[in-house]
Amino acid sequence: MTAEKIHNRLTLTRIAIDTYRENVAYLNCKCEVYRAEGFQSMSKIEVSSDGRSILAVLVIVRDSRILAPGELGLSEQAFAQLGAEEGTQVRIRHAPPPVSTEAVRRKILGERLSDEDFHAITGDIVKNRYSKMEMAAFLVASSVTGLDRDEVLGYTRAMADTGDRLNWKEPLVADKHCIGGIPGNRTTMLVVPIVAAHGMLIPKTSSRAITSPAGTADTMEVLAEVSLSPRRLHSIVQKHRGCLAWGGTARLAPVDDILITVERPLGIDVMGQMVASILSKKLAAGSTHLLVDIPVGPSAKVRQMSKATQLRKLFEFVGDRIGIHIEVIITDGRQPVGRGVGPVLEARDVMRVLENDPDAPSDLRQKALRLAGRVLEFDPDIRGGQGFAIARDILDSGRALASMKAIIDAQGRRKQLPRPGSLTHDILAPGSGTVVEIDNLQINHIARLAGAPMDKGAGIDLFRKLGDRIEKGEPLYRIYADFPSDFEFAKELAGRDSGYRVGKASEMTMSLLEF
Amino acid sequence: MTAEKIHNRLTLTRIAIDTYRENVAYLNCKCEVYRAEGFQSMSKIEVSSDGRSILAVLVIVRDSRILAPGELGLSEQAFAQLGAEEGTQVRIRHAPPPVSTEAVRRKILGERLSDEDFHAITGDIVKNRYSKMEMAAFLVASSVTGLDRDEVLGYTRAMADTGDRLNWKEPLVADKHCIGGIPGNRTTMLVVPIVAAHGMLIPKTSSRAITSPAGTADTMEVLAEVSLSPRRLHSIVQKHRGCLAWGGTARLAPVDDILITVERPLGIDVMGQMVASILSKKLAAGSTHLLVDIPVGPSAKVRQMSKATQLRKLFEFVGDRIGIHIEVIITDGRQPVGRGVGPVLEARDVMRVLENDPDAPSDLRQKALRLAGRVLEFDPDIRGGQGFAIARDILDSGRALASMKAIIDAQGRRKQLPRPGSLTHDILAPGSGTVVEIDNLQINHIARLAGAPMDKGAGIDLFRKLGDRIEKGEPLYRIYADFPSDFEFAKELAGRDSGYRVGKASEMTMSLLEF
Repeated sequence: MTAEKIHNRLTLTRIAIDTYRENVAYLNCKCEVYRAEGFQSMSKIEVSSDGRSILAVLVIVRDSRILAPGELGLSEQAFAQLGAEEGTQVRIRHAPPPVSTEAVRRKILGERLSDEDFHAITGDIVKNRYSKMEMAAFLVASSVTGLDRDEVLGYTRAMADTGDRLNWKEPLVADKHCIGGIPGNRTTMLVVPIVAAHGMLIPKTSSRAITSPAGTADTMEVLAEVSLSPRRLHSIVQKHRGCLAWGGTARLAPVDDILITVERPLGIDVMGQMVASILSKKLAAGSTHLLVDIPVGPSAKVRQMSKATQLRKLFEFVGDRIGIHIEVIITDGRQPVGRGVGPVLEARDVMRVLENDPDAPSDLRQKALRLAGRVLEFDPDIRGGQGFAIARDILDSGRALASMKAIIDAQGRRKQLPRPGSLTHDILAPGSGTVVEIDNLQINHIARLAGAPMDKGAGIDLFRKLGDRIEKGEPLYRIYADFPSDFEFAKELAGRDSGYRVGKASEMTMSLLEF
Repeated sequence: MTAEKIHNRLTLTRIAIDTYRENVAYLNCKCEVYRAEGFQSMSKIEVSSDGRSILAVLVIVRDSRILAPGELGLSEQAFAQLGAEEGTQVRIRHAPPPVSTEAVRRKILGERLSDEDFHAITGDIVKNRYSKMEMAAFLVASSVTGLDRDEVLGYTRAMADTGDRLNWKEPLVADKHCIGGIPGNRTTMLVVPIVAAHGMLIPKTSSRAITSPAGTADTMEVLAEVSLSPRRLHSIVQKHRGCLAWGGTARLAPVDDILITVERPLGIDVMGQMVASILSKKLAAGSTHLLVDIPVGPSAKVRQMSKATQLRKLFEFVGDRIGIHIEVIITDGRQPVGRGVGPVLEARDVMRVLENDPDAPSDLRQKALRLAGRVLEFDPDIRGGQGFAIARDILDSGRALASMKAIIDAQGRRKQLPRPGSLTHDILAPGSGTVVEIDNLQINHIARLAGAPMDKGAGIDLFRKLGDRIEKGEPLYRIYADFPSDFEFAKELAGRDSGYRVGKASEMTMSLLEF
């Protein structure tokens, strides 16, 4: 890196401000270094001390109570990264953008990036050398020009290389992953205990909800502790053959966690980025076999079979080259899966299925068995097509429930289960007929306004699904919330558009998939 | 705008931090509002008080000396924008991204944007509703997909509408503009006094250097005050028919000044954005006639004649539709213009030309006369082709010098002229031959490392130009600096690559342009 100017000494001080994945340095506007050299707020500087150095964005402070002239403040992440003590003498200098931003500029011009480019970019990002702006430039340029399949492969490997790799020392490490977007759909919490009960290793780590009302980690957290140290996770998996943990404690492809802080507010959701993000985590997590669930439907993430097929091929291409055996299953994404939407309500559905409760939602049970069956067929001793029956036996016999209970106890069972929200409101059918459409996006939006996933008891309980008959004035679903303001917003949105359409049975979108 | 949650009252406090064009709000991590509602650092919130509201990015503070629980801090710009007093009760709530980001998402998907989209986007940006990330997304998406000429037109109008419009109440308001990239090239400071001496109105406002070692405002500042109130600027122009002021005090297309804080660090420099940026400023400044200078050369911004022609047509298309008469002149951009590079050295060249000093650089004189001649031909009373001779008469007779002196006195003459840097170093020819190549980018880079434009006396003085004969060991140019660290960096870079190539006369790149 060419540095542009060298400067005098400043006294390091820690500024207790959480700048969330961006390194920020603070300088008093009366500081001589600032005045003499024309540093500008928001420019990039290099801070160094004893041979260690970090890049940070400079912010100018005009209040000496926050920071005195002669001091250099670092935000918490930046302070930790520099690893020097308060009071240490540090130097700052103008820093050009990280070298790899040159590759970002080439991507903006429409060029292909090489494996080396992706390694340089992800390496700089994980070292917090990129500003949020620079990350946005990389992500948007990749979205607009697209990533071809070799680029996705290079990007996947580069992301996996930014963190640790788990090694389970077993020949078959199973995993399943849904690309998301469907409310409810908590199949992972059923697949894991079924597969683990069979004895197959399935050390499942999941993320929390990003734009949905509940992720697997949020829902499992209703029942058990999910934030486990890597060591504890290993010992639980060794004993119980599976776990349902939050993936945030292991350093698996950490660059992905940084990029998501930019992708989410910008609403970027592109095929190549999704595949690289998912597969880099699996590669780092040591998975050998992976089942990918792609739901297709008019309000799902993937809306046409042709797109789903394209996505399947991309998963297969990258999977083959990084040494993960991938099976892709395309499922019915026309409506939510199960009844509950939101952590507590979804956990209730999962437990009902495991307990073989007659009130258990049959679509969730069926889908989970189908997925578990496919995962079980990764076992070379299981004949193709036999997985479903084996999964059903494990579930019906109570072995899956026993496996789940053991995992919950091992992770740390919750003393008291949170309850569904205390404020409830029913949304009624505007006329009689058949439910012909349920908008996944609208159901997700209403459940989030009600407070999910932050407020675990908030969400929606669905009383009718596609094809069900309903009479005018009967309830379609119930909203649960705990806080009056959330409750009002959710009610108001559902009042404007319930997400349901009631009509003639013949109007219903037919699924293209067999079940 | 759909707001997602309403929250309790907080006490407004001002945080003396300059977050440079981004609204930032601060909340203590122990604050109940933060803990209860799961606000996240870097999420977007709406802050409201008495019916006024602003959007800001939330940053979490862990130190009660900076901000106490129950307080909401606002950075300086955000505080000023909300316009409430310290101690006022304010409310905050989760805010979705500004509505116009939906158009940005469509641009990412490759769609064309409408006039309404551009108005919505620029309107939100100028109200500081966009985060830096969101601006980066807009700029990168527009760069990658490109803007077609109707989009450039809509974008130009939308940018001009974000600020004030000047009205000179005259039928002919002349302006000239160079797209930049060529070191030296201070023709504006010659064109203005020549044109003003003829009596044509030329109220010239310029920017400061962004990535170059000197802008017109930086160079004029060596001789006179350039930061003039709009009122003073008007009275100077009325009396002297011209001025050479910094454009930052008038609110002309202010959104451009905001976007540039993102374009510059990202190194985005795209045709459509450049044209919209230039012409929106001219439209707002009330120009009726504009001469655009496009230098072409192997290390200029525009490297092929075909590109220059494409750019000319884009200027003409937009100019015709916004009612500005535009003439485009394509000039020789193979090397720096004039001798000095850096504010003091360029000001010296300009004054020598005005004073008809025999040491004045003849290329600068010739180019300025050519441009001034074309501007003079905007006058309906001047016959096509007669402009050059009239400009030369004005210069040779001393009337241009008198006009410049009057403008300098009116703006506020500097008591003491800054001198060239006290540290000097000559770069010598590595062999004998003819100068066959001068790299504009390298010359700019060396001059900037030497300290220009912050340090007005820093820069480079060129002793040889293209086609000049030189013997081994004779100096090619001299570096000037004031600070030892700058001096060392500049020397080191020039030592690695001087930017000059000495060879056989036949190797010289021939200009495609006639002079």
